Amino acid sequence: MPSYTAPLRDMQFVLHDLLKVSAQDIPGYADLDRAFTAAVLEEAGKVATNLLQPLNAVGDRQGCRLENGVVRTPTGFAAAFDAVRSGGWTAIDCDPAYGGQGLPYVMHMVAQEPFVSANMAFSIYQGVTHGAYSAILWHGTDAQKATWLPKLVTCEWTGTMNLTEPHCGTDLGLMRTRAEPQADGSYRVTGQKIFISAGDHDMADNIVHLVLARIPGGPDGVKGVSLFIVPKFLVNPDGTLGARNAVSVGKIEEKMGIHGNATCIMNHDDAVGYLLGKAHKGMRAMFTMMNEARLGVGLQGYAQAEAAYQNALAYARDRLQGRDILGAQNPDGPADPIIVHPDVRRNLMDQKTFVEGARALTMWGATLIDRAQKNGDTDADGLISLLTPVIKGFQTDKGFEMAVAAQQVFGGHGYIEAWGMSQFVRDARIAMIYEGANGIQALDLVGRKLGADGGRPVMAFLDLIRGFVTTNQAEARLKADFLDPLEAATADMHAAALYFMGQIKTPHAALAGSYDFMHLTGHVCLGLMWAQMARAALDALDARASDSAFYETKLATGRYYMARHLPATAMLLARITTGAAPVMALDAAHF
Amino acid sequence: MPSYTAPLRDMQFVLHDLLKVSAQDIPGYADLDRAFTAAVLEEAGKVATNLLQPLNAVGDRQGCRLENGVVRTPTGFAAAFDAVRSGGWTAIDCDPAYGGQGLPYVMHMVAQEPFVSANMAFSIYQGVTHGAYSAILWHGTDAQKATWLPKLVTCEWTGTMNLTEPHCGTDLGLMRTRAEPQADGSYRVTGQKIFISAGDHDMADNIVHLVLARIPGGPDGVKGVSLFIVPKFLVNPDGTLGARNAVSVGKIEEKMGIHGNATCIMNHDDAVGYLLGKAHKGMRAMFTMMNEARLGVGLQGYAQAEAAYQNALAYARDRLQGRDILGAQNPDGPADPIIVHPDVRRNLMDQKTFVEGARALTMWGATLIDRAQKNGDTDADGLISLLTPVIKGFQTDKGFEMAVAAQQVFGGHGYIEAWGMSQFVRDARIAMIYEGANGIQALDLVGRKLGADGGRPVMAFLDLIRGFVTTNQAEARLKADFLDPLEAATADMHAAALYFMGQIKTPHAALAGSYDFMHLTGHVCLGLMWAQMARAALDALDARASDSAFYETKLATGRYYMARHLPATAMLLARITTGAAPVMALDAAHF
Repeated sequence: MPSYTAPLRDMQFVLHDLLKVSAQDIPGYADLDRAFTAAVLEEAGKVATNLLQPLNAVGDRQGCRLENGVVRTPTGFAAAFDAVRSGGWTAIDCDPAYGGQGLPYVMHMVAQEPFVSANMAFSIYQGVTHGAYSAILWHGTDAQKATWLPKLVTCEWTGTMNLTEPHCGTDLGLMRTRAEPQADGSYRVTGQKIFISAGDHDMADNIVHLVLARIPGGPDGVKGVSLFIVPKFLVNPDGTLGARNAVSVGKIEEKMGIHGNATCIMNHDDAVGYLLGKAHKGMRAMFTMMNEARLGVGLQGYAQAEAAYQNALAYARDRLQGRDILGAQNPDGPADPIIVHPDVRRNLMDQKTFVEGARALTMWGATLIDRAQKNGDTDADGLISLLTPVIKGFQTDKGFEMAVAAQQVFGGHGYIEAWGMSQFVRDARIAMIYEGANGIQALDLVGRKLGADGGRPVMAFLDLIRGFVTTNQAEARLKADFLDPLEAATADMHAAALYFMGQIKTPHAALAGSYDFMHLTGHVCLGLMWAQMARAALDALDARASDSAFYETKLATGRYYMARHLPATAMLLARITTGAAPVMALDAAHF
Repeated sequence: MPSYTAPLRDMQFVLHDLLKVSAQDIPGYADLDRAFTAAVLEEAGKVATNLLQPLNAVGDRQGCRLENGVVRTPTGFAAAFDAVRSGGWTAIDCDPAYGGQGLPYVMHMVAQEPFVSANMAFSIYQGVTHGAYSAILWHGTDAQKATWLPKLVTCEWTGTMNLTEPHCGTDLGLMRTRAEPQADGSYRVTGQKIFISAGDHDMADNIVHLVLARIPGGPDGVKGVSLFIVPKFLVNPDGTLGARNAVSVGKIEEKMGIHGNATCIMNHDDAVGYLLGKAHKGMRAMFTMMNEARLGVGLQGYAQAEAAYQNALAYARDRLQGRDILGAQNPDGPADPIIVHPDVRRNLMDQKTFVEGARALTMWGATLIDRAQKNGDTDADGLISLLTPVIKGFQTDKGFEMAVAAQQVFGGHGYIEAWGMSQFVRDARIAMIYEGANGIQALDLVGRKLGADGGRPVMAFLDLIRGFVTTNQAEARLKADFLDPLEAATADMHAAALYFMGQIKTPHAALAGSYDFMHLTGHVCLGLMWAQMARAALDALDARASDSAFYETKLATGRYYMARHLPATAMLLARITTGAAPVMALDAAHF
């Protein structure tokens, strides 16, 4: 049975040594001092360890059941959801006007990590609700906000995103669900939606579906798609729950993982819906949810890897097998712990460097969102728009890969369900698929974000890195180990971007290299994070910080990532510059 | 529900265009002409498609059940096993003296592929039996051979390998199972063995366990380990089955995949056993099984990827979503099939180039085994010893990765069990773990095989590649696309081998780079296969072969692998030459 402990020391390092949050000129950040974030994260860690982690295996084994049209969640989920709710964990960054705590988004994100690590399936109920909250907050009328937000903030009601239909996932222009306008200004929604996370369950009084549908007579394709609020129960003018709406669960999907989350087929049969935002502008409102969701999914990628890593590390310290080739490290025992073996170390270091780098990147991304939203900083907005597909795509690919690597440490035991490592792998797998499969993230990055605003964001990102390198050039402790590899990787990224620009007339070339470019950029991002973390660690050491072992470890960990992972950028560039020809050579019939 | 069709055309290409089996100077090979292998493979393909593939999902859903001490296999397995048996599929390469067909090993391997692709869990019952057959054939007395082999050849009795114990997997020196010698020359075996594939089931009259155990008084560690035949039922002198032996199933493990195969805890409680081979030389006999099993597991790696690929390809041709950026390819439909999108192509080409390259490598390996065993060719023996850990480790890592990639083509549907793509991923995962986890394969390669016989095998391998490059240097159709990348990758492999030799006093350096070296060598192997396949395709085209489209496709497919995958070797070399320091920098306490 796996265990989980929130990595509080590393979270604090990211918030304070790296990001120096309380010194940032963003509204609300001054309150985020070390003592405050420590208190919040310690409490979040307790909830995760004591309440959510023990339910993770329960959720996997039991799954959700559809009984007489109602979804039953696994034993213990409802009580845990009550505890999460009453602890205020659903409201951290929500608007105080609707009962939220009004803290910065970064605080919401960092406090979410332990929940996701401890029980990803459980955390999704809250995650999709937060997305629905944001969409209504940004696009709703005052009346809609007053009706729906207070209950979504507390998760007394939960939310969903109803996008996908059986024949239409990525290509939402093919959507068939229809919304007929009614005399009273409401709509009647009809259609089938699939893959609806938290589509129904027994942990909330009402479920607020946000549903993409077509208003007859509107434009074809995605330009004719609108977003609707379709509640499970209608809400009376006094706020009490009224009649059951005509939206029902067709089926719970049997999936590879996240069994504790009810992934539903939802049937809308002339269900009452309310237009959210403008008619035919549903995609814009949906992307408010989607972009937030994508950062959250990027967090899932590394958070699952963190949980898997913790257990792999414990096993590697515990399992006795073979001897250190340099001499017994545990001479009184029958064998040495397998952590002495270099290949086991390699594996653990891969996991550790990814998780810590991705945590830094995700939290930096969260501060960019705060800066964009609260300070109206368009540069920050451009940067996070550029990096969102990377955080989602790269981190979930690598997060899955690292969960597999952690499972591998266990040998045959890793394949046995009782050890729990299989669940990390099976759960982590979904993050590469939902909220836009990773190929779509790569397409978004290369086809949309790279050229956005005349290429300003990508150039600003490259300049930011070069600025860091230039500023620290004289620091011998960074030069060869951090700055040189970062500079080389950044040059590879720049060369790849220039290559794409030079292929403007052969768009297949950019698309053929898009996935490689997403990974290339991911490595550059983590390289930047590690270089900045090394800088922060040196600063702490120079200031004679008390826990020097932590900072020395951070430096050594970073050297590993730079030495052993940044060489990937040259390979990815080599692949990218082979262009479209090798990829597109075959006629589809000749595969 | 997935489908499967044996890739007969490609198998024939590998056997005849690439390996030219019927022209090889190995006993029995002259009979392997195109017509003969076509007839065999067509029939194997029918069994796989019609009988085994439909049972794959059944096995996954039902799993095996332990009922009153007896393992019940999934519905339909027993009838299918009878059909496989009566079709002679278990006896292809077995010794005619014991009822086998006496065909070359390569014929056994190539005919196995469809079975493994169609139903990996099912194929394991036969696979482990073949291993037990080989161990007894090579190490048994005449009486033992007469008693056990005829029934193992037909799979009327099946075999197992009992190695692992709860506290000892890789490090077999820790083994506790004991074998007490008896006055009649037999032994009494006591101990618990875990992870026993096909440990018990209802498809055979008897089960022949090959059990590693310690004879009291023998040397410590692996040098005191002996191998025993421990049958489920004792066999009377007349060959009929006698008393039930004291070996029983403790439990069937609940696993991530291969649910159709019963992975058992086996308890030996003073069970009657017969020494196989010499006392304390059990590891040698076990390695006869193990090496064969490792090649078979390497086959599983690509065979699962083949099955997953076939379904991903079909889905990519069928699923309509989005439009080709260059213009609609299916203008009358609502959207284009997703195979038009470059990133989907990239994904499919990754799968296709891996599977075809790995098939070639595996079958080449099988011919090396035939050459080593039937011709006593020590060079062939050295080469296949070197390549076995690569075929096992690289091909199962990549096979899993490609099954994941195939699943990704399905988007959200890939995560739903009913589509069957999850099963390919879950089943393929075990191949990276069993028969020596892939980290152990890497250790075997670098720690044992690389320096074997003064490095002769690896130098012979490098010379073989260079010879091919030199011979074909003037062929413009190969030079830039195949020979140059192969030469560069081979130089990287050579440099890595030299680096390890230079670090002889710091063995951690070689061990820290062992996994990378296994993958580096894997890419060189597949690069060689693709270059040789390109040569074979050109020869066929020059000879005006009738199906020129097949050969043109083969060339274009190969160009993709060379252009987009061989650049990995430079990255892997860069990682390797960072040495042990980054990997071993942390104290175990500081992780």
